[in-house]
Amino acid sequence: MKAKDIARLVGAELRGDGEVEITSAADIARAKAGDLAFYDEARELPPTAASCVVVSQKFPAESATSITLLIAHDPKLAFAVAAGAVMPAKAMSGRNPSAFISEKADVEARFIGAFVCIGENSRVSKDAEIHEGVRIGANVEIGRSTIIFPNCVIYDGVAIGENCVIHAGAVIGADGFGFVRDSANGYVKFPQIGKVVIEDNVEIGANTCIDRGSLGETRVGEGTKIDNLVQIAHNVEIGKRVVIAAQTGISGSTVIEDDCVIGGQVGMGDHAHVQSGAIIGSQAGILPGKIVRPGVWWGTPIQPLDEYKRQNAYVKGLERLNKKVKELQAELAKIKDR
Amino acid sequence: MKAKDIARLVGAELRGDGEVEITSAADIARAKAGDLAFYDEARELPPTAASCVVVSQKFPAESATSITLLIAHDPKLAFAVAAGAVMPAKAMSGRNPSAFISEKADVEARFIGAFVCIGENSRVSKDAEIHEGVRIGANVEIGRSTIIFPNCVIYDGVAIGENCVIHAGAVIGADGFGFVRDSANGYVKFPQIGKVVIEDNVEIGANTCIDRGSLGETRVGEGTKIDNLVQIAHNVEIGKRVVIAAQTGISGSTVIEDDCVIGGQVGMGDHAHVQSGAIIGSQAGILPGKIVRPGVWWGTPIQPLDEYKRQNAYVKGLERLNKKVKELQAELAKIKDR
Amino acid sequence: MKAKDIARLVGAELRGDGEVEITSAADIARAKAGDLAFYDEARELPPTAASCVVVSQKFPAESATSITLLIAHDPKLAFAVAAGAVMPAKAMSGRNPSAFISEKADVEARFIGAFVCIGENSRVSKDAEIHEGVRIGANVEIGRSTIIFPNCVIYDGVAIGENCVIHAGAVIGADGFGFVRDSANGYVKFPQIGKVVIEDNVEIGANTCIDRGSLGETRVGEGTKIDNLVQIAHNVEIGKRVVIAAQTGISGSTVIEDDCVIGGQVGMGDHAHVQSGAIIGSQAGILPGKIVRPGVWWGTPIQPLDEYKRQNAYVKGLERLNKKVKELQAELAKIKDR
Repeated sequence: MKAKDIARLVGAELRGDGEVEITSAADIARAKAGDLAFYDEARELPPTAASCVVVSQKFPAESATSITLLIAHDPKLAFAVAAGAVMPAKAMSGRNPSAFISEKADVEARFIGAFVCIGENSRVSKDAEIHEGVRIGANVEIGRSTIIFPNCVIYDGVAIGENCVIHAGAVIGADGFGFVRDSANGYVKFPQIGKVVIEDNVEIGANTCIDRGSLGETRVGEGTKIDNLVQIAHNVEIGKRVVIAAQTGISGSTVIEDDCVIGGQVGMGDHAHVQSGAIIGSQAGILPGKIVRPGVWWGTPIQPLDEYKRQNAYVKGLERLNKKVKELQAELAKIKDR
Repeated sequence: MKAKDIARLVGAELRGDGEVEITSAADIARAKAGDLAFYDEARELPPTAASCVVVSQKFPAESATSITLLIAHDPKLAFAVAAGAVMPAKAMSGRNPSAFISEKADVEARFIGAFVCIGENSRVSKDAEIHEGVRIGANVEIGRSTIIFPNCVIYDGVAIGENCVIHAGAVIGADGFGFVRDSANGYVKFPQIGKVVIEDNVEIGANTCIDRGSLGETRVGEGTKIDNLVQIAHNVEIGKRVVIAAQTGISGSTVIEDDCVIGGQVGMGDHAHVQSGAIIGSQAGILPGKIVRPGVWWGTPIQPLDEYKRQNAYVKGLERLNKKVKELQAELAKIKDR
Repeated sequence: MKAKDIARLVGAELRGDGEVEITSAADIARAKAGDLAFYDEARELPPTAASCVVVSQKFPAESATSITLLIAHDPKLAFAVAAGAVMPAKAMSGRNPSAFISEKADVEARFIGAFVCIGENSRVSKDAEIHEGVRIGANVEIGRSTIIFPNCVIYDGVAIGENCVIHAGAVIGADGFGFVRDSANGYVKFPQIGKVVIEDNVEIGANTCIDRGSLGETRVGEGTKIDNLVQIAHNVEIGKRVVIAAQTGISGSTVIEDDCVIGGQVGMGDHAHVQSGAIIGSQAGILPGKIVRPGVWWGTPIQPLDEYKRQNAYVKGLERLNKKVKELQAELAKIKDR
């Protein structure tokens, strides 16, 4: 791809040689000839061998450089889009003869790796990639161009949309964790017979677990991105364009509305409700049933970030407060003595 | 199954048509004809198409409905038991020819999925299901009717009881995390040559890890239920009918006695001892060696819930306390001025 | 091995019969004839059937016992070294015919288990063991004598050194979690095209995830030990001889220098920098960009342990402080009344 083509693709202003050929993307410090890089500072470029750099509109116009520049409104975004075009993910194709595919399955996928299993009445759409060792149960739906990396397990009845990416070892559709205490015999399993629906353009991290609904469904909305080792319990409902960082756990029936950002290692109790636009700091804890309004939240149990900070400052001031109280006691004693 | 048969099975009182046929279970709001639902409120049924509803003894007797009712002491429990009878889990059977089963293994299992491996001197009992891609090492024991979902790994020498359910991706019997610092050469591995024993009726969640004992054994007691992504370290001893929610981590040699309930994302230091009946809130942290008495516990380091709440209230009151102290200072200054 | 050979191997002083044959290692309480045990107390041995016990230099010299003793500077370390020599891990060998190994791969490994996949241009060195169901992508490098347990997934381009142990279900080289918000279309993936480098003598726990660098690399240094279910994000740089306990999560681009000890369930924000020798308590939280100096750290956000303890004591004293302030108010009111 030529620099001028990238400029057009990402809507950037070209400065310098538009004919330079771009074959790869790299960090500006390590870039080599042929690489595209990005630089989001309002000062001159650091030394770099990159052939083309995406810069921001704050970049000093007077800055002299022989490197082709692409001036973009959001250089990181422009770089991401351009890198995706210059270096598309390696598309796998073919069907490994070792795979067990039910005769009653409907598989159009571009790639079926070795040792894959696909159960009856499952449908794997066009251009999907099912990598080595993936287990797909019965009555599963996999949308177009979705990629499932090795050793994932998709239980019976799960529906996954188009253009999803599911990383290795993820487990989707295992039984939810629901038991009823029977005083005589310990625990009886509550039925875990619901579904999981993953909408389009969702990314799910390695070894993440998304349980099926107990009676209803567990749902992950369009464009949501989930990191590694996340736990999503039965009947959770996650909206569109939500971001969830690693090791967060979401208990049963909790609702997260669109466009929330959830940090890592967050814990949410069951039946909580996180409203659209809320931002939850890492390691925060949300109590069961809590309604979380839009804004930035922190701590366990969560508080608005400002309150958390103020409270934290008061806690840090406790040594001084104790000293003050001691002084007051001493002064008062003196007054009483008089 | 007819409603009258369910009534008999769960010991409920039948009201209405006992001949109605029940084929499935559902949430009361989504139920269709043929479905069993449950409703635990002391008021009239909401609109539902369910054919039969389990209600509690608080249900208003005067409530007029054409739906068959089952009046139970614990409707959720009765519903769970009934749903298990009406919709038994799909039993898998057969032996996929791709499986590698040692000639020295003794395998009676009802189902061996594709790409399973079973090592020498291992025994898989009657009616067990070993799903696709499960790896069972040597000298492993799997009890009757136990189900192991795809891609689990059971290391050498692990013993699993009867009627267990182990969800996809769980790893049982990996080496414990024990190293001895050698000032010259970094770390030397402490021997991790013990066992894991999982007793009967245990459920283990997806991608959960249970390490082998270093010298002794790691044990999970009868009827215990463990959620997804839980970490159980070497030599941990978990009693009977313990419930452990997702992402909790239990360090080496910790003991959890019978009938404890452990929330999600709890962390327990090594050599802690949680006594029978203790309830540990989510995200709590237990220090190494701590003895936790029965009761409800919360926070890091854990405290009795009441203490935690009182303390939390004091922390929230710090702003006011600081104000009061300031006022006292001002008043005292005034007095001294006089 | 004879006791006298073990004494020589671990540099211990022999007391008693050096000819006794040692075939196994065990806990002192459960040891049988032929077992080596260790005992690190400054008093007489408890009853044991062990044939040989490693004791410390504090062991009472006058203590009469017929058991062969090995007196060592660090008995636990000596025991670990001896146990490794007496009971070396079972070496697997052979190549299962079911494995798919690219013709363009260079595989010398001692053992390739059933249903393994190895992609093109990958190199698996001498004496490596690749257990059942492991997926190795293209352009992967596996060093000499490294053992990869079942169902691990090693993505394209990952480099793993010599003498590493990687436990079941670990995922190395999945895409990092990096997206750029595009106000119109949700999130665009930032390129995740970097590498992972695991140096020699590293141990990685079951179901742990180590993501590839986005543009640069993620690196785990020589001799580092990582427990189960740990999350290591893109571009993280971990030094040599670092120990990381279970369920800890390390965000993007964070640096952990040599010889740090990180507890379980710790969360580190991105771009943090933990300096050599720091010890981080379990469940601690490190804010993004934080520089953590050597020493012992605790809590969220982390503080030096001493500060944390002092602050915790002040919080616990809040009830009393409130009471004191109330008394002061009352006394002051009395004074003002006069």
